[in-house]
Amino acid sequence: MSSSQPAETRTQGRGGQTATLAEIAREAGVSAPTVSKVLNGRADVAPATRSRVEQLLRDHGYRRRRAEATRSPLIDLVFHELESAWAMEVIRGVENVARDAGLSVVLSESAGRLTPGRTWADQVAARRPYGVILVLSGLDEAGRALLTSRSIPFVVMDPAGDPGTDVPSIGATNWQGGLAATRHLIELGHTRIGAISGPTQMMCSRARVDGYRAALETAGLPVDPALILTGDFHHEAGYRQGLALLRREDRPTAVFAGNDLQALGCYEAARELGLRIPEDVSVVGFDDLPVARWVGPPLTTVRQPLTEMAEAAAKLVLDLAKGADQTATRVELATSLVVRSSTAAPAGV
Amino acid sequence: MSSSQPAETRTQGRGGQTATLAEIAREAGVSAPTVSKVLNGRADVAPATRSRVEQLLRDHGYRRRRAEATRSPLIDLVFHELESAWAMEVIRGVENVARDAGLSVVLSESAGRLTPGRTWADQVAARRPYGVILVLSGLDEAGRALLTSRSIPFVVMDPAGDPGTDVPSIGATNWQGGLAATRHLIELGHTRIGAISGPTQMMCSRARVDGYRAALETAGLPVDPALILTGDFHHEAGYRQGLALLRREDRPTAVFAGNDLQALGCYEAARELGLRIPEDVSVVGFDDLPVARWVGPPLTTVRQPLTEMAEAAAKLVLDLAKGADQTATRVELATSLVVRSSTAAPAGV
Repeated sequence: MSSSQPAETRTQGRGGQTATLAEIAREAGVSAPTVSKVLNGRADVAPATRSRVEQLLRDHGYRRRRAEATRSPLIDLVFHELESAWAMEVIRGVENVARDAGLSVVLSESAGRLTPGRTWADQVAARRPYGVILVLSGLDEAGRALLTSRSIPFVVMDPAGDPGTDVPSIGATNWQGGLAATRHLIELGHTRIGAISGPTQMMCSRARVDGYRAALETAGLPVDPALILTGDFHHEAGYRQGLALLRREDRPTAVFAGNDLQALGCYEAARELGLRIPEDVSVVGFDDLPVARWVGPPLTTVRQPLTEMAEAAAKLVLDLAKGADQTATRVELATSLVVRSSTAAPAGV
Repeated sequence: MSSSQPAETRTQGRGGQTATLAEIAREAGVSAPTVSKVLNGRADVAPATRSRVEQLLRDHGYRRRRAEATRSPLIDLVFHELESAWAMEVIRGVENVARDAGLSVVLSESAGRLTPGRTWADQVAARRPYGVILVLSGLDEAGRALLTSRSIPFVVMDPAGDPGTDVPSIGATNWQGGLAATRHLIELGHTRIGAISGPTQMMCSRARVDGYRAALETAGLPVDPALILTGDFHHEAGYRQGLALLRREDRPTAVFAGNDLQALGCYEAARELGLRIPEDVSVVGFDDLPVARWVGPPLTTVRQPLTEMAEAAAKLVLDLAKGADQTATRVELATSLVVRSSTAAPAGV
């Protein structure tokens, strides 16, 4: 149900049943203030009681009326990991929107787990932000139920997995980007093009490599599975898989590196093997981080408008906090190829 | 006075006078709850009343007892600007300590102003974090008084200006780093060495260039003021000032670039002028960002332990929140020279 019905006290559950806070308290065999404490993330509730109340809130699809909830002037921003150089671009976008709205940003990291831990969700419930933005990170069903019951809206940016059709999300046109990067190499005359994918459990990685395949296939070129390796979006993986591709006897003349950090890893692999970029091997990245312009040679890459995507995610979550309808919002911002000096025709063409 | 006296109700002011909340209310001609509202950063106080109460809190050196203050499980982290690539290293260090302590990090940006605005300080007072870490950013006297009166401790990391002897701060041995970078170049045989300083209002910039000067002087080499230019720690400034240095007829054979981003700007300037690194010009950075290892050639630089510095700042602020004595804590973590491939003997040596 939409959050645009702030006057609704009785809320519609999954099975069509409705429940007030008092009814949930009665069913749980606790007092109404105890249910309130759970909703407010207070620590002074026994774990067994808490989990019984949470289960009932979830079963009844309970949703707190916004009038009951006093919000803190905060937006929660959760990263899968803070390692990535592009986290900064995202933080900047969210900060821009938050500052204009008089809000502060709470930053956290789901630290290698693809779903933030239960402790995190409790903390969010206790601090009651305007909304939550999850970057490359999903929420398990308990986490979703917990935020929903507190009327805390959430948006997923560039989802790692399938966020579900009813979760608002912001992405980029990853498939189109992979297609454009590979077509650029084909137009230069390359026919053996390697690819280094990001982690395969991330939808964005899959979409980029699918775009790469589509470009080869529509150009009538064979897709050689031996030339498609998998990395983890970090420099080290680009270096390792770059070495693996470039050490082959039938080495590719060009590499679509999956992202900029992996492209820089490829640069290092090429240097180590005494191969010149772009004379001996062309390299294309994905993201267009600031560093792409600074390296030698400057990197041809697919620009992903990370700051704009983060701004869009922050605006969407604030709209949802104001009661906008959240049914199945999925926004994809356009990627664009930025041609610099790391790509050229292969030798002999 | 130290914050290790939690039982103290009457607090010692500048002139030795003491005042309770009730006395401040009486002097301001308002009720005690109104003073409480001001202390809690509540919005429902007339601006004139608020500023009269703040002035009295400040004049009396009022400090809230910790027992009165219910803290939120937050640490505030304030950047001068989020542009810098090294902001991520700092965020990671603070996150590490915050996570272990069960706290979340609120991120903000003083956005070009060297002192965070009044609105920011009010927001901090209202959310009552365990403490505040200011990065390359100071606090004006009103901001300091505001945090002190709420017993919210703060630590300055790598101060932009003189933080004052009574402000706890964490830095790196910038002077030693500038000295080591320049001595390395002198030992390779360079005698004409240019320098690109960071912004001169930042103490860390001054210390690095002073270390550079000391290395030249102790080696008996002349200091040529025409070879010392000023940037702003960004890539663009390194490029512009790199061009200015390398276009000179008597161009230096080596450049101490002030930080890594300015060093990368120098790389671009050298490429544009057809100069090879390190054959025609040696370049040394400062920071040792991840990118320093990835560029071609890998950059010789002075490593600043940013993540460890941020961890130290976070631990210090939590110690202060627990009541540790905060008199004149200044910690400097050691820098170290990391020699890679961007430095070599000058041609003909």
